[in-house]
Amino acid sequence: MSDFQAWMTERQGRVELALSNALSAANIAPMRLHDAMRYAVLDGGKRVRPLLAFASGELTGADISRVEQAAIAVEMIHAYSLVHDDMPAMDNDVLRRGKPTVHVEFDEATALLVGDALQSRAFEVLSQPGLTSDASTQVQMLGILAAASGSHGMAGGQAIDLESVGKTLELPELEFMHILKTGALIRASVTLGALCGKPMDEVAMNKIDHYAKCVGLAFQVVDDVLDSEASTATLGKTAGKDAAQNKPTYVSLLGLARARELAEELRTDAHAALAGLGSDSTRLKQLADYIVLRKY
Amino acid sequence: MSDFQAWMTERQGRVELALSNALSAANIAPMRLHDAMRYAVLDGGKRVRPLLAFASGELTGADISRVEQAAIAVEMIHAYSLVHDDMPAMDNDVLRRGKPTVHVEFDEATALLVGDALQSRAFEVLSQPGLTSDASTQVQMLGILAAASGSHGMAGGQAIDLESVGKTLELPELEFMHILKTGALIRASVTLGALCGKPMDEVAMNKIDHYAKCVGLAFQVVDDVLDSEASTATLGKTAGKDAAQNKPTYVSLLGLARARELAEELRTDAHAALAGLGSDSTRLKQLADYIVLRKY
Repeated sequence: MSDFQAWMTERQGRVELALSNALSAANIAPMRLHDAMRYAVLDGGKRVRPLLAFASGELTGADISRVEQAAIAVEMIHAYSLVHDDMPAMDNDVLRRGKPTVHVEFDEATALLVGDALQSRAFEVLSQPGLTSDASTQVQMLGILAAASGSHGMAGGQAIDLESVGKTLELPELEFMHILKTGALIRASVTLGALCGKPMDEVAMNKIDHYAKCVGLAFQVVDDVLDSEASTATLGKTAGKDAAQNKPTYVSLLGLARARELAEELRTDAHAALAGLGSDSTRLKQLADYIVLRKY
Repeated sequence: MSDFQAWMTERQGRVELALSNALSAANIAPMRLHDAMRYAVLDGGKRVRPLLAFASGELTGADISRVEQAAIAVEMIHAYSLVHDDMPAMDNDVLRRGKPTVHVEFDEATALLVGDALQSRAFEVLSQPGLTSDASTQVQMLGILAAASGSHGMAGGQAIDLESVGKTLELPELEFMHILKTGALIRASVTLGALCGKPMDEVAMNKIDHYAKCVGLAFQVVDDVLDSEASTATLGKTAGKDAAQNKPTYVSLLGLARARELAEELRTDAHAALAGLGSDSTRLKQLADYIVLRKY
């Protein structure tokens, strides 16, 4: 196992434990809701957003136990969005992370409430007293997570995605959609991780934000590439879904070869953005590689 | 118009304007989402939670423009819960505040995203820099709103409500459900309003919290009474719905006469809780009267 893989495995385990601790036990009322919240969040996913938060926290010498809380807050937002996105009114998907989706395993009303309650819980976790040395930074972090989640962030991206089904989008429109839908939360992960540590100057903040933009887009481009070539078994979610739903993707707009090239270019840009940040940015660099080179 | 009515009308107008300013215009992308968010929130409701926040803010000499922001944050949470609650997977209701519900006027996917984005926006509003003199109080306020909204608050109450359809609940179970479903956010409104001003001692905080518990329960008891006797036109939402869905209510458990009596007792308790808080608690007292004596 490479040093990076060992780091990643350790952090993923830490996230799993922290998430488990932050979610009410399934035997606490309302039991069905708590059971379903745990089902939606635990034992799943690559935890890319938490990993990005940990990596950028290393840049500012952040206390790992603080970053961990920011990381799970972001992951709860991500998990809630998947639960709602999978519902019949949205993507109507039955498989997620190799398991039946929440509305299939439980029911639609429970899935709705699971998403709602996970969003609240994310903000509750991030409001814990003493999460940062300075309470005004913590207020700033809460504002960043809220903005990234809302109508000018993730939820707005979902809305544009919905409107785009069956339409011919141009590349700038597709990009705008993804910048909101997945990009906003990925940028927030990187920023929140850094804010857990020592204050960063504006130049450095802009560098990691540019890095996060590149990684966010690359993540989506690679998702589209994998969706077009991989099997459902490998992905753990329904493959070829976008094409079946006639949704525009980077592959449908650019072709497979150019989409692969674009992901490579974004990886190079992400690396370049980290120039001058020193060896503490190694994990961010490795994560850009991981995100682009992953096979599922 | 009585002095109280004039106060209420002024505050309701202020809330309407602040909500309108805090929501993106309907011509900003994603337009359909923003249009639907405004539809869900504006021009509707008695704004009971904001009124409670304003009234308790008067106790601590809070700046009215600060309380206003806390008030609209709470109202956005309330509005989002109505949008999700009305959806087919939940109560499947077509009428709210005299208008078609959001999923009827727009569509289910939009209703889902409206609720999600309103929740995010509530926390964003409450994270504005400088909302309180002291950032750690603001972090505390964010935590209170999040806890009141989540699985141990409003969303948890909805989950218990769902589980209770067709079951015979005992009074303590019904009460537990309502303490979460409506009580938690009402208590948060009162607490957040007070926290916008000068620090209160623990005794006074406990008093207004006890007041808020009484008012929260009274609100629900009165809702059940009105639902059982009023017409759909007067309520602006489907009347007699609880009975039709075989949902337990205070009226079905206690009978109409005893339910009316209980509301009266809770009003007396709410007044008693305010003893010793001085004349600044007048608005809270008047609001308890308004909540119990209202006709719709």
